[in-house]
Amino acid sequence: MGDKENKGVKGFLFSAVSCGLKRKEGELDLGLIFSEFPASVAGVFTRNLVAAAPVLIDRERLPRGVCRAVLANAGCANACTGPEGYEDGLECARWAAMELGLKQEEIMLASTGVIGTRLPLERIRKSIPSLVRGLGPWRLEDLARAVMTTDTRPKWTLRRKTLEGREVSIGAVVKGAGMIHPQMATMLCFVVTDVAASPVFLQECLESSLERSFHAITVDGDTSTNDTVLVLANGASGGNPLREGSPSGEEFRGLLGEVLEEMALEVVRDAEGATKLVHLRVEGAPDNTSAWRVARAIAHSPLVKTAFYGEDVNWGRIAAAVGYSGVPFELDRLDLWYGQVQVLKAGRPAGEISENLAKDVVRQREFSIRVCIGSGSGEALLHTCDLSHEYVSINGSYRT
Amino acid sequence: MGDKENKGVKGFLFSAVSCGLKRKEGELDLGLIFSEFPASVAGVFTRNLVAAAPVLIDRERLPRGVCRAVLANAGCANACTGPEGYEDGLECARWAAMELGLKQEEIMLASTGVIGTRLPLERIRKSIPSLVRGLGPWRLEDLARAVMTTDTRPKWTLRRKTLEGREVSIGAVVKGAGMIHPQMATMLCFVVTDVAASPVFLQECLESSLERSFHAITVDGDTSTNDTVLVLANGASGGNPLREGSPSGEEFRGLLGEVLEEMALEVVRDAEGATKLVHLRVEGAPDNTSAWRVARAIAHSPLVKTAFYGEDVNWGRIAAAVGYSGVPFELDRLDLWYGQVQVLKAGRPAGEISENLAKDVVRQREFSIRVCIGSGSGEALLHTCDLSHEYVSINGSYRT
Repeated sequence: MGDKENKGVKGFLFSAVSCGLKRKEGELDLGLIFSEFPASVAGVFTRNLVAAAPVLIDRERLPRGVCRAVLANAGCANACTGPEGYEDGLECARWAAMELGLKQEEIMLASTGVIGTRLPLERIRKSIPSLVRGLGPWRLEDLARAVMTTDTRPKWTLRRKTLEGREVSIGAVVKGAGMIHPQMATMLCFVVTDVAASPVFLQECLESSLERSFHAITVDGDTSTNDTVLVLANGASGGNPLREGSPSGEEFRGLLGEVLEEMALEVVRDAEGATKLVHLRVEGAPDNTSAWRVARAIAHSPLVKTAFYGEDVNWGRIAAAVGYSGVPFELDRLDLWYGQVQVLKAGRPAGEISENLAKDVVRQREFSIRVCIGSGSGEALLHTCDLSHEYVSINGSYRT
Repeated sequence: MGDKENKGVKGFLFSAVSCGLKRKEGELDLGLIFSEFPASVAGVFTRNLVAAAPVLIDRERLPRGVCRAVLANAGCANACTGPEGYEDGLECARWAAMELGLKQEEIMLASTGVIGTRLPLERIRKSIPSLVRGLGPWRLEDLARAVMTTDTRPKWTLRRKTLEGREVSIGAVVKGAGMIHPQMATMLCFVVTDVAASPVFLQECLESSLERSFHAITVDGDTSTNDTVLVLANGASGGNPLREGSPSGEEFRGLLGEVLEEMALEVVRDAEGATKLVHLRVEGAPDNTSAWRVARAIAHSPLVKTAFYGEDVNWGRIAAAVGYSGVPFELDRLDLWYGQVQVLKAGRPAGEISENLAKDVVRQREFSIRVCIGSGSGEALLHTCDLSHEYVSINGSYRT
């Protein structure tokens, strides 16, 4: 997960405390990112029409282009809480701003947890002073812990790179394990970097990286009310502002893309109850949009996902999902591989020998599936997981 | 399940034998319906582009409008088997026709089971003579057993009604438990009746009943390669041909609709691993199509389905599914009921008391959920079930 020995990202401080939002006592549940300098900010949010209060607030603030801090909590999504929930969010931002000596508009918010319950304001208010006192450059992992819900481990990365002769850093934290769907997931991701970049360029870099990262993963096809990705760049490394099209600007774009991709794959690796990580490549669709549609039909099929779990080379279920995806194709052109093993050739079973070879593929923790539908050059790469007993256990009893 | 004491449907004979297509020895797996007179036939089939050989064959035969027999098997779907599979299907029809003294085009076919394996032709050929010898008027339940896969019980019905002073009968058999989705399910349904009706009127009656029956159920959102509904009417009750718009014609349409609805609900009740039957009503959508879209988003959400399983009043997941369904609405107009208990009022939680009342609702084996999105008069009624550990067990190990 990158170079974690190192000392953080210049000009950024992190903190996390426990204020009783999670069921287990003492668990970190309130986190803070603080930038010592005004940071350019880019963000993308859930497309769910039922957007949580923190998402509504961040969307209003994003056009300012600059922010100084991110206050994030787990245990309560502050979604479906009406105007009161919106006011609750503003109130939290006000308290944090007061303690940090900032204007409240300089604070962005993120929440994850149960939908439909109000934030316990009093607990949060009381915790903010210690949250701010705890700020330090090395507490990225604590922040990652504070936003965990059904995640089994904190997920974060820290990387260094030399851009125009200067060392720059980029750190990222991600949270997400269920309600994960292309077009964003129940997922919070915060990226901080000490490069200098305009909000416009930063936003453009973020959006151009989504198709290969967070839009390319799916766990259960549910799009959350709270999805938020924020990228903060504070320029503390001392370099000139990065520009689109310049070598260093494009190098940074590549670096950000790698970090987002790593974070997205971490989410699928840690998906609720998942025992398999499956890289699903669809090729030969009429266009890319169709290829994504086919990939999603396969990846959302409970039958396909339970077959992954059962380590069953049930390619028939994949073929059936292609068939109902709504994308036109000829069955006698359909090819299908598990890893390097072709199991379906021009719509017909490749035979028992290949099926036995494919069994070795599906026994692995991580494997690829390639579907070629032979009707064009559209393609998609989607990362998904299996559907296990544990997923049902986790989500059948999440609140009880 | 209707009047099962009675003696079947005039002019129809049924039979079932075990020919080793299922894993368990001695289980019925090959069934036959035979009409002593040429019967008008109506049919609808899967819209999956990966359609099985029997579906391809039936689609070619349906325009003839008349048929004499249906040969059905479980244990092998004869799907993704290429031109060889198509030939296998024709071969089975030929053998059955020879034994019954019919032309082979007078036979319709249906298969269900594993995709991608060929039919064991020799076993079927050897079993056909005993299958034909076994034909009798009372063996509807045996036929229902022969087409079972993961179904836990044979599902069938038999009803009588007086039309124009004559007693007429209608019998139906249905099979299906998983890979169930609106737009047809892994589902075979055969309806036989002794009324007289033209193929055109019969087809029209069938299609007009689908929206309230087989298109109104979903288990796992997977559309199978083999879905088939056939309705045979042989006129053996002796009445005049029923006509569209006539009182007796419309009475028959209602009767057929009731039978199809009963069969569809039987499928959801027996859904793989299901512990809950949920009637999901969506109201106030911009139009009916949008209402269906909202209903499907909710019913296909693994998070909603696992919450049903866990008897958790997690209305937040339902609201989130409405939010990502793609249908426009205002959150502050969203209302949500479990049974008679309103839990969300104008986008806000109705409070702890109603949530506690709703807990009693979700503990029931069968309950209703009503979602009103307040932006029009479109509505939909979808019947669905929960997602349980057992579903994962069944589908993680179906072939092993």
